Amino acid sequence: MVEKYDTVVIGAGPAGTAAASSLKAQGQKVAIVEEDLWGGTCPNRGCDPKKILYTAVEAKEQADLLAGQGLNTQSSIEWPDLMANKRNYTKQISPGTHESLKNNGIETITGHAQFVDQHTLEIGQQTIEAQNVIIATGLRPRILDIKGKEFLQTSNEFLDLDEMPESITILGGGYVAFELAGIASSAGAKVTLIHHNNRPLKAFPEKLVQTLCDQLSENGVEIILDQEITEIQKDSASYRVIGNDFDKKTDIVFAAVGRIANVDQLGLDQIGVEYSSKGVKVNEHLQSDVSHFYAVGDSAASPVPKLTPVAGFEANYVVDQILGDHKEIGYPLVPTIIFSLPKLSQVGVTAQQAEEDTDRYQVRTVNVEEWITYKRQHEKQPLVQLVIDQKQDQVVGAACLSMEADEMINYLRLLIKHEYSANEVSQTLFNYPTIASDIQYLY
Amino acid sequence: MVEKYDTVVIGAGPAGTAAASSLKAQGQKVAIVEEDLWGGTCPNRGCDPKKILYTAVEAKEQADLLAGQGLNTQSSIEWPDLMANKRNYTKQISPGTHESLKNNGIETITGHAQFVDQHTLEIGQQTIEAQNVIIATGLRPRILDIKGKEFLQTSNEFLDLDEMPESITILGGGYVAFELAGIASSAGAKVTLIHHNNRPLKAFPEKLVQTLCDQLSENGVEIILDQEITEIQKDSASYRVIGNDFDKKTDIVFAAVGRIANVDQLGLDQIGVEYSSKGVKVNEHLQSDVSHFYAVGDSAASPVPKLTPVAGFEANYVVDQILGDHKEIGYPLVPTIIFSLPKLSQVGVTAQQAEEDTDRYQVRTVNVEEWITYKRQHEKQPLVQLVIDQKQDQVVGAACLSMEADEMINYLRLLIKHEYSANEVSQTLFNYPTIASDIQYLY
Repeated sequence: MVEKYDTVVIGAGPAGTAAASSLKAQGQKVAIVEEDLWGGTCPNRGCDPKKILYTAVEAKEQADLLAGQGLNTQSSIEWPDLMANKRNYTKQISPGTHESLKNNGIETITGHAQFVDQHTLEIGQQTIEAQNVIIATGLRPRILDIKGKEFLQTSNEFLDLDEMPESITILGGGYVAFELAGIASSAGAKVTLIHHNNRPLKAFPEKLVQTLCDQLSENGVEIILDQEITEIQKDSASYRVIGNDFDKKTDIVFAAVGRIANVDQLGLDQIGVEYSSKGVKVNEHLQSDVSHFYAVGDSAASPVPKLTPVAGFEANYVVDQILGDHKEIGYPLVPTIIFSLPKLSQVGVTAQQAEEDTDRYQVRTVNVEEWITYKRQHEKQPLVQLVIDQKQDQVVGAACLSMEADEMINYLRLLIKHEYSANEVSQTLFNYPTIASDIQYLY
Repeated sequence: MVEKYDTVVIGAGPAGTAAASSLKAQGQKVAIVEEDLWGGTCPNRGCDPKKILYTAVEAKEQADLLAGQGLNTQSSIEWPDLMANKRNYTKQISPGTHESLKNNGIETITGHAQFVDQHTLEIGQQTIEAQNVIIATGLRPRILDIKGKEFLQTSNEFLDLDEMPESITILGGGYVAFELAGIASSAGAKVTLIHHNNRPLKAFPEKLVQTLCDQLSENGVEIILDQEITEIQKDSASYRVIGNDFDKKTDIVFAAVGRIANVDQLGLDQIGVEYSSKGVKVNEHLQSDVSHFYAVGDSAASPVPKLTPVAGFEANYVVDQILGDHKEIGYPLVPTIIFSLPKLSQVGVTAQQAEEDTDRYQVRTVNVEEWITYKRQHEKQPLVQLVIDQKQDQVVGAACLSMEADEMINYLRLLIKHEYSANEVSQTLFNYPTIASDIQYLY
């Protein structure tokens, strides 16, 4: 007998598990299908393990900045210990998530989902039916289509490396490339980052990206721009990274050249659900061309950055849609962050957008090196950039390059949302001295 | 000839300098009088130097927590270097502040102010007249009135110690005592903290204070409660701290038993301005009994914690009063923070207040040790406490004990102010994973 469900969720990452749990809590009969690790990319091989590695790196870098300033320190990253620490965290994620879903009364099915028709899918030998379907299958790293591509590794392998090699090469100029470069360099590897054009991290302000590149370079990362890599060759124990007039020997090569949606192996094209490498094509209700098929998080081609908090937001939204709400999705402010050395984060109207309308927007970049928060940590060239809407006399966007950028942008996100004026900021008392108590001097 | 000013400010700390600068910017003729360090307590011998010492301590403690978890670390505090680092910061404060005031066109007068009548004061040989007076003279450490009190040192000396002795004893149970204890202990001293009753940090929730005491004790701080110290004796190179049935040898003794307002030497009693050890008695306009005498910041007996952000707020308020505004002062939410090991911070309705009205308030204490922010740092027993107004279904107060307490309470302060519901918090996307992105799981 074919089991029938109100909703079947494909993919048990942050988006899928959130949607499944909410629908179940609202009384639906729910199944969730996962073919890989329960919990998905973020806690297994994404944000969380990355942050665990970064935590040790951050502690080392902060200690190094204070060396000779009162801290007698000899710190280095002990990669095998750090990996054991990470694995100690991640090993519980998949079984724990699976168990938790089962305990919530959700039917969990392990295997690959294949749609037979618009309401029927097979997982191996099992066939089930669903009134609604939520696609939440995430993204996978894209592999460059070059000669020797079989020698390329991805962030998945980086985050589970047993040993940190002496030299590593990272192909790419996006956030993953800059995060891996910072971690590996701090862990003692000689890092080369190669990007095919001259504008890495193109969503971020040029001035801040340039300063980040300068700082990484000063710390020993070799950054090579405008270099198209065409081939990877394997030597005995190492690799050669080859481009036009370029040939470099390295111990390991990572491709961090974007990610593609895991929606191409589900049989969706057979049942009228349109998709691309960016994910399932969705409307303002996160519905695909087939109205009872929704897509959320990384596997939805929605017009927002593919981030864990966005995945949760979209999951909650789709739950409401399935339960009968019909309003179009409206996204809140979405901050973005690169945990490199230092951190780079932004929110709201970007400097690039501001440059397209200089009558309306003013961009102000402040070097905050002499401020107590940065001075006490001996940070080098921390920058905060504000985008001001001159008509409204309001800060509408911000970017920050510093070891405090993550929290600084979180604060500014709240102040931008609530349209704080300079006077209101000065009347908002924070703990002193903290990142937040500095903000009155920015406005 | 006697020079006449629109406003004379007594005391050039954060409150006084802010008021003087604003009034001058608004076109007033302004003088400011300082008899000690320009810039006042906060940047010279308060928050800022304390935070500089704490920064190295924090880096050491965070590295220690990660030892064996991926960080190969041998860190210790090198006190003379740390002091040099601090002095490098503080040495610029007094001359820099003085210069900046002069450059702004404010008359700066060095010396002790003595009021002759309600509009006239003398500073040494100089006599000036003022239409308005702002008292902003701050607080000084209180010295216990016991035998051998001349052997007691205060936070002023602690923050400028050339060497950290092997053993130190701190008398007191307030925030200064707990901050000095954390720093000294991390710097390698054997620390004894002695408090006369059994409830140190009485403004903070008992559960969190108890946990803080436990953690300090585990890290080697001896905390002795219910012990009244009656005498300090000097031996050859050390001291004896003596109470009933108590006698302890130590290298140095600090009294951190509160602070008293610097308003008793100005001749205020002669001209009808009432004051106590808590400061100038003020009304809801921060006016003293003599209406053109205002008091702000630490030297005003206003019903708020004596903190730098409050000083700035009150200074701005009084500037508006002098320039013609007449509305009563209304204080925003004031968070408070203890930079001990770990940090302890709170804002809004306290657990104590909640216990007095259990029909209305619910107190929820959460151990967040397993959350990604704390897990990745291997923090021990981090606690977050929320006070919920059950009628409004709103979080109205919060306290936190963790190394992230400063920023956590800053965030909660904003969310409490804007009356966020659980649903609104979940729809507020922050950088992930950060302190702020955890908050949705608290609400």
